[in-house]
Amino acid sequence: MTEIDRLIQYLARLPGLGPRSARRAALFLLKRREALLQPLAAALAEAGARVHPCGICGNLDGSDPCAICRDTRREAGLLCVVEDVADLWAIERTGAFAGRYHVLGGTLSALDGIGPEDLDIDGLVRRAGSEAGEVIIALNATVEGQTTAHYLVDRLAPTGVAISRLAHGVPVGGELDYLDEGTLSAALKARRPIG
Amino acid sequence: MTEIDRLIQYLARLPGLGPRSARRAALFLLKRREALLQPLAAALAEAGARVHPCGICGNLDGSDPCAICRDTRREAGLLCVVEDVADLWAIERTGAFAGRYHVLGGTLSALDGIGPEDLDIDGLVRRAGSEAGEVIIALNATVEGQTTAHYLVDRLAPTGVAISRLAHGVPVGGELDYLDEGTLSAALKARRPIG
Repeated sequence: MTEIDRLIQYLARLPGLGPRSARRAALFLLKRREALLQPLAAALAEAGARVHPCGICGNLDGSDPCAICRDTRREAGLLCVVEDVADLWAIERTGAFAGRYHVLGGTLSALDGIGPEDLDIDGLVRRAGSEAGEVIIALNATVEGQTTAHYLVDRLAPTGVAISRLAHGVPVGGELDYLDEGTLSAALKARRPIG
Repeated sequence: MTEIDRLIQYLARLPGLGPRSARRAALFLLKRREALLQPLAAALAEAGARVHPCGICGNLDGSDPCAICRDTRREAGLLCVVEDVADLWAIERTGAFAGRYHVLGGTLSALDGIGPEDLDIDGLVRRAGSEAGEVIIALNATVEGQTTAHYLVDRLAPTGVAISRLAHGVPVGGELDYLDEGTLSAALKARRPIG
């Protein structure tokens, strides 16, 4: 296998790139050796060597504890539980949350054989019992996410911590006509007084 | 800028990946450190160090002359002119061509300020005059490709080499109803007797 074939093979395994776009990407890189190929190789090597999961919250960062756990301006008593680092990033992009996180690393799934011991639930319960005043459960609004949320509520109850979940409702900019019935009835039930 | 941000920034510059899919790809890589991130970094570094344009035909390869130019089983007198290495790869995938290649490196374009001196046309004329018996012009069927093809015919005429171009016609598996008029009239004009 040539150097180019090997490069294409690895690029094709990235999500969003198939064999065809991996070929395009490889050629694109080889034509931009100094501007892109070499910096990308260096960025990969550096991230591979330095980025690790935070021992406290599970976030990926170049330092442990991560920058969020070390940030003393953030509210230590407010803990947002997410499934994955991607969800943590999504919430960080809003700029609307100034607490800390706890990354579960997945959701319970009988089908995939993922039980409580495969997720960082013990760590969450420990943190809820010591440092947290409120736990916000920010799991996906899917069957697995909601099953996991129920399980977390049961496990967190003995700690006496306040537990909340994200609001359901009409997405900002969303059109009612295109919304599913479940979202629309949730939005009706959770209606807010105005004026 | 953190190691992760830098990685995402470079990934987002690949064709086919936007900022969102670059974030997904970065996370995917960081979760598969040994299975994918490190091999990809190594493949990039190796390709960057070893792959270079062939001094004869312009193909990208780990050796110079490239594997195709060194392959004595291939017909040296049959030269296929392509715009880009991606086109060379596309023709190689057919397995239907056993000659050699000449990569121009682009097409003439007054708009983009690309003139004959920016393409490897002198090299082509030199090879046509010495080694080649036939030159197949396999440029894209676009305005730029066809303009460049005309220019090549003029430049190659003094060498006395036989010149051909790819056939136009109905794509295999194509439906007439969806074809543009230009392709359909070309296919009519170039009709072939059967039976």
